[in-house]
Parts: sequence; structure tokens; C-alpha cells
Amino acid sequence: MTDVLREVTDADLDAIEIGAAILGTGGGGNPYIGKLRCREELKKGNCIPVIPLDELADDAVVVSLGGIGAPVVGVEKIEEGEECLRALRALEQELDVKVDALISVEIGGANSMEPMLTAAQAGLPVVDGDGMGRAFPEMQMCTWSIYGHRECPAAMADEKGSIVVIRETPDDVWLERIARSVVVAMGAAAGLASQPMRGDFVKRAAVPNTITQARNLGRAVLDAHARHADPVQTVINQENGQLLMTAKIVDLERHLKGGFAVGHLTLEGFGAYRGDRGRIDLQNEFLVFRRNGVVEVCVPDLIVVLDSDTGLPITTEMLRYGQRIAVVGLPAHKLMRSPEALRVVGPEAFGYDDVTFCPMETG
Amino acid sequence: MTDVLREVTDADLDAIEIGAAILGTGGGGNPYIGKLRCREELKKGNCIPVIPLDELADDAVVVSLGGIGAPVVGVEKIEEGEECLRALRALEQELDVKVDALISVEIGGANSMEPMLTAAQAGLPVVDGDGMGRAFPEMQMCTWSIYGHRECPAAMADEKGSIVVIRETPDDVWLERIARSVVVAMGAAAGLASQPMRGDFVKRAAVPNTITQARNLGRAVLDAHARHADPVQTVINQENGQLLMTAKIVDLERHLKGGFAVGHLTLEGFGAYRGDRGRIDLQNEFLVFRRNGVVEVCVPDLIVVLDSDTGLPITTEMLRYGQRIAVVGLPAHKLMRSPEALRVVGPEAFGYDDVTFCPMETG
Repeated sequence: MTDVLREVTDADLDAIEIGAAILGTGGGGNPYIGKLRCREELKKGNCIPVIPLDELADDAVVVSLGGIGAPVVGVEKIEEGEECLRALRALEQELDVKVDALISVEIGGANSMEPMLTAAQAGLPVVDGDGMGRAFPEMQMCTWSIYGHRECPAAMADEKGSIVVIRETPDDVWLERIARSVVVAMGAAAGLASQPMRGDFVKRAAVPNTITQARNLGRAVLDAHARHADPVQTVINQENGQLLMTAKIVDLERHLKGGFAVGHLTLEGFGAYRGDRGRIDLQNEFLVFRRNGVVEVCVPDLIVVLDSDTGLPITTEMLRYGQRIAVVGLPAHKLMRSPEALRVVGPEAFGYDDVTFCPMETG
Repeated sequence: MTDVLREVTDADLDAIEIGAAILGTGGGGNPYIGKLRCREELKKGNCIPVIPLDELADDAVVVSLGGIGAPVVGVEKIEEGEECLRALRALEQELDVKVDALISVEIGGANSMEPMLTAAQAGLPVVDGDGMGRAFPEMQMCTWSIYGHRECPAAMADEKGSIVVIRETPDDVWLERIARSVVVAMGAAAGLASQPMRGDFVKRAAVPNTITQARNLGRAVLDAHARHADPVQTVINQENGQLLMTAKIVDLERHLKGGFAVGHLTLEGFGAYRGDRGRIDLQNEFLVFRRNGVVEVCVPDLIVVLDSDTGLPITTEMLRYGQRIAVVGLPAHKLMRSPEALRVVGPEAFGYDDVTFCPMETG
């Protein structure tokens, strides 16, 4: 299970899908369609070579790419399939560079698959790592941006053939703002490729080995299903996580605000947690978990909602009143917990002025 | 007054301001700030050379540019001053071309001044003509687009240093949609320069001599003021127009919808028009004039609202209950009345399925 991944094969795709959805912490979009497209590419004879992060050449030209848009739209509006490839080509044209490898901006959710799909289409390898180790709603919330890489220029492509290059912005927050506006005009789904990075920077800034991590996590869940073992406990063991609560969803408020799914769910514990009240706030992803009014886990640590029977992840748009869930906390990678990172992905960055991040294992 | 304009001098600027505002038919933004900036450039020793349309070389590389945004925002958010210049530079970089001349996308309102300002800054001439002969709210509503020029790529620049290149879109309506979305993110005001045109196309497609027209129209109004002559009649004589009504605004409904000022005003005639009820519909610009429920003048013909005393134009954002106005109709240029043009700028294009364009002089 801990072998080094050199290539993503058909057998890996189902596992990566599950692992990536768990790491998506409710958001990031559904990796299902991307998985099917990757499978098609493999059937055509294309392949998805993987470069382990520590084998990346220092001067390699690495492009981070992924889909941008509202996950809830991605469910109904299926991509044409070459959005990210066209964004990559537009970026190459803009900068006149030859790209050596691709990397995912976020392993959580649909963007686990996008760079693998583009890699198969373009004949390029993907790097085993990503820019978040999870999913987050905005572009500047990735390690590239946090650790000093400017994401401009960024190229965007939609399914109708439109191509937009955001050539300059004062900072990556402005890039995010303009890109978000463009993607709304494009119909809330587009591919985006941003300013290439050097291999040595990627080795320093990427959350390492997250394709392998997603694959192994998904494999463990599938294996637990096959063995009739407890899949929730399997996720916890695999990721060094913690069971926060088994609970029923007794209230659910969720609405679209500025292109994001925003709201919270109220939980009533069962089993060992009978008598506990829980609450999870969300903005595409799950942001804060409270037990009886007290914050226990918050971003950037991962709050994962699993079906309590199957251990399969439930995304924000699939939450329903009455669902029986297991809430699990997983520790974020240390690159997402540094002071620089917390300024961008900590609770304050999401408007929680009264919540201070505390690593979940010390809470 | 009909001399050929070879250069815009300080003395011309006040006149162009008035003429352009009249041709703006209520929209197009206020040319005042642009005039002051042009004046500053002239004071610095820069100049604004003008090329008469018929003297343009067939192979000249001509770029159409202007401000894009909500006129109502332009009133409070003053441009930094080099937005269009930076958009031009970004377009040159995108296409690796040397530009020979600039032309206004619309002579009506603020975009009369923008190309002159950029010309002074860049050391380029402006062509005496424009793409509308008036103002219209959307980019595809210009003769370039109507007569077969694709406006992509288009480069946009804002006052904060952001630069966006819209490289490809399926058509100019999609370009408008994406550009509109970008300008909202940019704070509702930006400069935009689009795909260069050849001189021979511009000679065929531009509404001719409209800088001269605006200057002469404004001069005539100023001259009428000086002579204590009737300025409203002066506008009518100068532009071969028609007085539609002298009236008081007795009702005014105006709201922002999708970045546009939308609404209508109700008029009660006075003087020779006592007993008449009028109504003008607007979307940034005045679109349709009805007398006693019957359409008399509609787009693309120009509906101009003048202060009945001064003959100075009143833009949509300056309309007030109780104002005494003169409503004047001016015939659109024939390039805006062709079947191709009417599909894009006729009443149907603005959602009036029950209104058919009829040239105002035959109505």
C-alpha cells in the first residue's frame, strides 16, 4: 500500500476517486466524471505517468491546473473534457514555454482528476503532490501562492471555446476575484492553468505524495468494504485521524452566496455521542466543527463527513436532513499550518474573528 | 464649421464634449473627466492628430478602444488615466503588431475622449469616425462587429494594474458577456482595446467624420449661447433632426439591472405640445419614444433629451422629476440602419418584439 506510484492505472482510479472525495471535506466537486474521462484516455492507450515529488528536476517547468467553478453546477453541466488542456495550451502560448509536468492545485474533489486527465491528453506526467492537501474554495488558498509564487498569468478555457488570459493583477486575491468573475460568465465551470513553477519550488511548496495518499486511502476503504471491516475506522487509521461524532443531521441550512454553498448543519449525537449537539459550518468545504457550542476542529484541519455505514464521503450538496453520519477530523499537512498559511487558510481568513486555529490533535 | 479636422486643439475640446454628450442619447458616460485629461496632455506638449477617414491607408493597422463599465460608476470612480493605453499595450504584446491609428468605438459620451487621450499619450493619431455614431450599451453593437470584424482578442486594463486578455470567444456576444463580467470584477470601469482592423475595412465600416461632427455640433450650441439664439433649434438644424416634444418629466422610474440603468420616464407636453403624453424607455441610452402610446422614434435613431432652456444634454443618471426638457430625434447614420445593423441595434435587439424600426423622417 505504500509503494511509490509511478503511473496511475485503471485499477487506481476508483480508489483515487474515493480518497480524493474524502480529502475534499465536502467540497472540491465530484471526481466521478473526471474519473470516467481518465478511464477513457487509458482505454485509448494513453497513460498517466506520475513523478514522485522528490524525483522532480530542480529546473523542471511545472504547471498547476484544475477546474474552477461552482461544484453544484459541475453536477449538472458536464465538462466538454479538454477545458484544462486548452487552458494549458493558452498558457504555453502566452509564455512561450515548454511544460515538463503538471500538478493538481487541490487533491480534494474533482481537481484530483483534472491534471491526470490533461496529462493523458497532453502526454505529460503529473507530479505526486498538490497545492492544498485537501480542497479550498479560492485560488490564493494554495501553497504555491502562500509560499511566494505569483499565479499570474493564468489562462482559462471553457467548453464553448472561449479563452481568457489574466495577464497581470496586483496580487493573487485580485486574480481569484477576476477569475471567479470570468468563470461566472463562462457558465460556472472552466479549466485554469497558472504561471509555471520551477521544480525546486514545487519540491518545497507542494503537499507531498497526495495522489498516492488518495489512492491508498480509497484502497483502504474499498478493502474494508470487501472485508466487512469498519470503513469509518479505516479512514481514521489510514489518515491518523480522530472520530469526532456519530450523529444524525437534525437541521440543515444551505444557500448559494457569491457562487459558494454557504450554511451549517446541526447534529444530534448517537451511540457513544448520545446527548452531544454538534454543528458544522460550511462554505463549499466544511470549515468549523463545534461540540456543544465549543470549537473542536477548524480549517485548515480537515473535517470529513462520512456515511456512518459505508464510510463514503458526503459532499455539501448531498447533505440531507436525517442522514446518519460520522464526523471525522484529519490533521492538515504542516505546510498548511504554518503562520503564513494560517493567514490565508485559517479560520480568520473565512471570517471567524473569534476562532483561533489549534491543531486538532492538541485540542 | 465644415473645415476638415487635422488636429484636436484645446479650443475643440469643450465643443466635442457637448457634441459627444448630445450624441450619447443619455448614455455613454460623461466626457468631462476625459476632456480634462486631454487638456492636460495638450498642456504637456503632446498633441492629438486626426486622420480624416478617407485619407486612411488601406493597410493601416487601426485599433478601436474605449472605456467599458457602468456610466453611473464612472461619475464617482475616476479613472487613473492610462487604462486604455495599458489595454492598447497589452493588445500590441498579444499580437506583436505596431498600431498606426486609434478610433473610438462610440463617439457618444465618454468614449469620444478616450481614444484622443490615448492618442496623445501614445503618440498616435485618431481616425475621424467611430463605430456607432452615437452610444450603445454593448460591444457587439458597433459597426466593426456588425460588418464582419471579430473583436477578439480584446485586452482590458483597470486602474489597479490588472490586465486581462480575452483571446477567443465563439462570437462577439460572448466577448461582451465575458468582458462585462471582467469589468464588474475590476470595479465597473476599465479600458478595452480590441483586435486591430485594416484601414480599408475601417473606411467601409466606420461612421464617418464623427469627431468633426461632435465638434461642430458642440460649437453650434456654444455659439447659440453666445448669440442668445435658441440652442435646441440649433441642435435640430445642425443634425437634420426633429423636435419631438417640449415636456415636463412627470414620472421617472430608473433602476440598475445587470449593470445597466433601466427604466422609463413619463412626459407631459407643454407649449405647442400641451395635452400630449410622452414616454421614453431607457437602458443606459434612450431607446424608444412614444407619443400618446404610439412609437414615433426608436433605436438606432437617436433620441436626445435636452434641457429646454440651455439645449444642453441630460444623461439618464441626471434625469429628475419636474425637469423641463426638449425631446429631439436625430436620424442614425445609414450604416446603423441596414438590415444587418438592425438585427443588432434595432428595437428587437433590446427586447421590443412589437416595435419595428421605421426611419424617423418617414414616421
